[in-house]
Amino acid sequence: MCRWMAYSGDPIAAEDLLFRPVHSIIDQSLHSRLGATTTNGDGFGVGWYGRGTTPALFKSTDPAWSDRNLREVAAQIDTPLLFAHVRTSTGTPVQRSNCHPFRYGRWLWMHNGAVTGFHELKRDLMMAVDAALYPGIEGSTDSEALFFLALTFGLAEDPPAGVARAVGLVERLARRRRITAPVRMTVATTDGETIWIFRYSTAGESGSLFCSTEMSQVRRLYPDLEVLRRLGTEARLIVSEPLRDLPGVWTEVPERSYGVVHAGKHEIHPFNPLPSA
Amino acid sequence: MCRWMAYSGDPIAAEDLLFRPVHSIIDQSLHSRLGATTTNGDGFGVGWYGRGTTPALFKSTDPAWSDRNLREVAAQIDTPLLFAHVRTSTGTPVQRSNCHPFRYGRWLWMHNGAVTGFHELKRDLMMAVDAALYPGIEGSTDSEALFFLALTFGLAEDPPAGVARAVGLVERLARRRRITAPVRMTVATTDGETIWIFRYSTAGESGSLFCSTEMSQVRRLYPDLEVLRRLGTEARLIVSEPLRDLPGVWTEVPERSYGVVHAGKHEIHPFNPLPSA
Amino acid sequence: MCRWMAYSGDPIAAEDLLFRPVHSIIDQSLHSRLGATTTNGDGFGVGWYGRGTTPALFKSTDPAWSDRNLREVAAQIDTPLLFAHVRTSTGTPVQRSNCHPFRYGRWLWMHNGAVTGFHELKRDLMMAVDAALYPGIEGSTDSEALFFLALTFGLAEDPPAGVARAVGLVERLARRRRITAPVRMTVATTDGETIWIFRYSTAGESGSLFCSTEMSQVRRLYPDLEVLRRLGTEARLIVSEPLRDLPGVWTEVPERSYGVVHAGKHEIHPFNPLPSA
Amino acid sequence: MCRWMAYSGDPIAAEDLLFRPVHSIIDQSLHSRLGATTTNGDGFGVGWYGRGTTPALFKSTDPAWSDRNLREVAAQIDTPLLFAHVRTSTGTPVQRSNCHPFRYGRWLWMHNGAVTGFHELKRDLMMAVDAALYPGIEGSTDSEALFFLALTFGLAEDPPAGVARAVGLVERLARRRRITAPVRMTVATTDGETIWIFRYSTAGESGSLFCSTEMSQVRRLYPDLEVLRRLGTEARLIVSEPLRDLPGVWTEVPERSYGVVHAGKHEIHPFNPLPSA
Repeated sequence: MCRWMAYSGDPIAAEDLLFRPVHSIIDQSLHSRLGATTTNGDGFGVGWYGRGTTPALFKSTDPAWSDRNLREVAAQIDTPLLFAHVRTSTGTPVQRSNCHPFRYGRWLWMHNGAVTGFHELKRDLMMAVDAALYPGIEGSTDSEALFFLALTFGLAEDPPAGVARAVGLVERLARRRRITAPVRMTVATTDGETIWIFRYSTAGESGSLFCSTEMSQVRRLYPDLEVLRRLGTEARLIVSEPLRDLPGVWTEVPERSYGVVHAGKHEIHPFNPLPSA
Repeated sequence: MCRWMAYSGDPIAAEDLLFRPVHSIIDQSLHSRLGATTTNGDGFGVGWYGRGTTPALFKSTDPAWSDRNLREVAAQIDTPLLFAHVRTSTGTPVQRSNCHPFRYGRWLWMHNGAVTGFHELKRDLMMAVDAALYPGIEGSTDSEALFFLALTFGLAEDPPAGVARAVGLVERLARRRRITAPVRMTVATTDGETIWIFRYSTAGESGSLFCSTEMSQVRRLYPDLEVLRRLGTEARLIVSEPLRDLPGVWTEVPERSYGVVHAGKHEIHPFNPLPSA
Repeated sequence: MCRWMAYSGDPIAAEDLLFRPVHSIIDQSLHSRLGATTTNGDGFGVGWYGRGTTPALFKSTDPAWSDRNLREVAAQIDTPLLFAHVRTSTGTPVQRSNCHPFRYGRWLWMHNGAVTGFHELKRDLMMAVDAALYPGIEGSTDSEALFFLALTFGLAEDPPAGVARAVGLVERLARRRRITAPVRMTVATTDGETIWIFRYSTAGESGSLFCSTEMSQVRRLYPDLEVLRRLGTEARLIVSEPLRDLPGVWTEVPERSYGVVHAGKHEIHPFNPLPSA
Repeated sequence: MCRWMAYSGDPIAAEDLLFRPVHSIIDQSLHSRLGATTTNGDGFGVGWYGRGTTPALFKSTDPAWSDRNLREVAAQIDTPLLFAHVRTSTGTPVQRSNCHPFRYGRWLWMHNGAVTGFHELKRDLMMAVDAALYPGIEGSTDSEALFFLALTFGLAEDPPAGVARAVGLVERLARRRRITAPVRMTVATTDGETIWIFRYSTAGESGSLFCSTEMSQVRRLYPDLEVLRRLGTEARLIVSEPLRDLPGVWTEVPERSYGVVHAGKHEIHPFNPLPSA
């Protein structure tokens, strides 16, 4: 299993998000407590919005805990929106092009979970990707495939619908090949302004997913919390596992739901696959 | 451009093939004289037949000249058939899964050249790959695509025909998209017993390719050549560029031809693309 | 903490030692059960005796569990004596020159543990290394420093005495700087014929260390054990943690002792630091 | 041989310095024209001053031309002072800790050249490094050794004198061992405000070194030069080889001299080794 973390809010030093928390995403790459594997050492990636029109990506196959360049760069970057992911491979090669987040134009995408039977399904899934989008696929993971299917089905116009149709397609093709429980996922995707998160599995056993409560509530609960001095009022963190044990700060995202995080607000809605036709 | 080297003959230390020659393949990774680029530092790979039924592969994105493990391992390996390749990327990522040689079962494949317009053609080419073979594709190069197309068209039963149909398909699909001169290639492929080599380009500008003459002739020309003590009577070397400047030892493989190297014999035949239908 | 494994016996496929056991050293790089850390992902190394007069070394900073070349090479190597080590850094950089085993001439050395206060002691320790040996130091670890100190104090002539004086020196210099409990170690070293192992810590809290019992006894206990078909009568395995849970097969090496493994025999003796003067 | 580049002036995007020039430092890593080797593929490093009190370092053993993360990060960084270096190893391992620039506190240091006989001299040189500074040495290069010797001899208070004494020491110790022409160097070092450059070799065969002329003069010569729109009036570039062929823009730094670059000014002075005692 993988672990990921997304931040939205006032510009903050990437270092504060990646390295300072007690159980940071970097710590989770080595000592994950909630995932199927304790270690996520098959590569990592950080995507953030800064200069220019498209997000920057720093990805590497080196384990996150020992990457010195990540530490150096994180100390130099301020950003209002950041994605970070540490990877455990579910079979595909450990290479930079298979590290998350994936990028297409202004969009970023990261995923924890798997498409069961991806080896058998891959050809059909690749053929369902829009011909104009297909050349943008760089790696060989099920995660990137899901992303490009979502893009094919209109992620950029209606993200929940695009993802719902992508999942619907995978499930339909899996049924045809008698593959059960094909989809397990917690996904985060963003256009740099809004973050959409998804927690869904065909058989209902998704990885964990939490969203931080509103900053005003966090301040009420923990007025002396040192980190609050660096976080603005609109700060939201979405995580595979909490960065720190603080009761009342983390709300679990339910199974079969999606969330929309924007300008400090967080709304949850039901999520169901859609027919892709 | 890339450089490659193939050896067939009595078992020989891999170190003697890779590191000893004056202008070895390792030296060519840094100081190529005949290629479009002097440096081939986007990864390397060595495949050889030893224990077991399938060949072993040592591939890495580290430049060949500085890889210590390659040196160490090469000193420990004896083999009757070895492929070695140093890579210059023509656009696809530098990652182990994009290094040559590629392997499928007992087969190895390596390539110098490119499929022009591969970005546009890739989807069609991938769809032409046999559905049972498709999951075996690990990387994203045109070289690996050509290999799997050749396998689809019967490489394992009739290698020249398989390659001819693969090239024919690429050229047909390229014409449809008004891509000119789509194929440039020197290719070596083997099942561990015989090596088939190909030199062909749609527009006739293939990379260089040479085959060593029969050992008996080499000995007549250069009776004191020190390396001959390590080479048996059936030794044959096929190279992108000569390992050493020795007139009479290297015979250029003509454009639009293929060769068959087996048990010390080397035969050249004309090569032309075939319709793939 | 690190994990290591040493084998001595009839030639055996490296693959059988590194990958087949239920809880192999490769598995221990990801799921160590007895060490201070569950993961040892800061690099790995394998040293073995084969062709030539000096042992071969395959070392890499990539985590052992995902290194494809290791798998490929291990399937091609037979050896009567092999060292394997997976590393957790105690502060020095993750780089190939800091991976174990270390090599000097025919000697290999690997270490689990640390020299506390190495940062303060390093200069004095380096100055104690024989001037002729000093240029052979490639990395920056305490483990390599211990090795070269042992070599300085006569490892090649009398291994237990060489190591005892090296440890004695470290403890003496540490006392001068009021560093307590400076040495923690389990060490294996070999000249390619005999393996010497050491389990010692100034404060008596060494990492775990086990040696397999005589093959004849293993066969008596587990006559149907499949792996026995590949192991000869002289096979001995020395491990940081058992490769498989088989009561009666693994004997713990006591604290403050050293062992000598040769031609299937294994003798334990007390170990104490010696004055280095 | 290596290649390096230093920039001082108004804040500029790192991408504009590293990637845009016709013959950028990245291009020089692959196609150097003036150095002893055309390729500098044994690692690269970029150091720059931005947030915080110490400079940031991005260093890697991957060849600079294919490092995607470098490209991504360079597009996100603005800096008034940047060092960049591409490496060809003169014998020491290819590892991040051996890539330039080296850092100590606020200081950066990079070097093109070598200390001949470093293998024999290293122990004596290391012993001459101040005991308090010694633990800061991470790698194994002659370049880093020169840096720490210069620091030992007062680089932070009087850079030219510190470097002169360091060189003097090396030459004195080399004479003792009958090593001729021990030092070849072009060096750049900075505290984040001023850059000191050095061009000196015992035998007078230093690598090439050029400094750009004052921006006002460059504008007079080439009023339409597109890049000028991004460069402020105080911009200065110091390079191993010119980034672009523009007569009148590059002034060669003479042998046996040092330069001081600060606030757009550039002064050259004679450089001679000093006794280190």
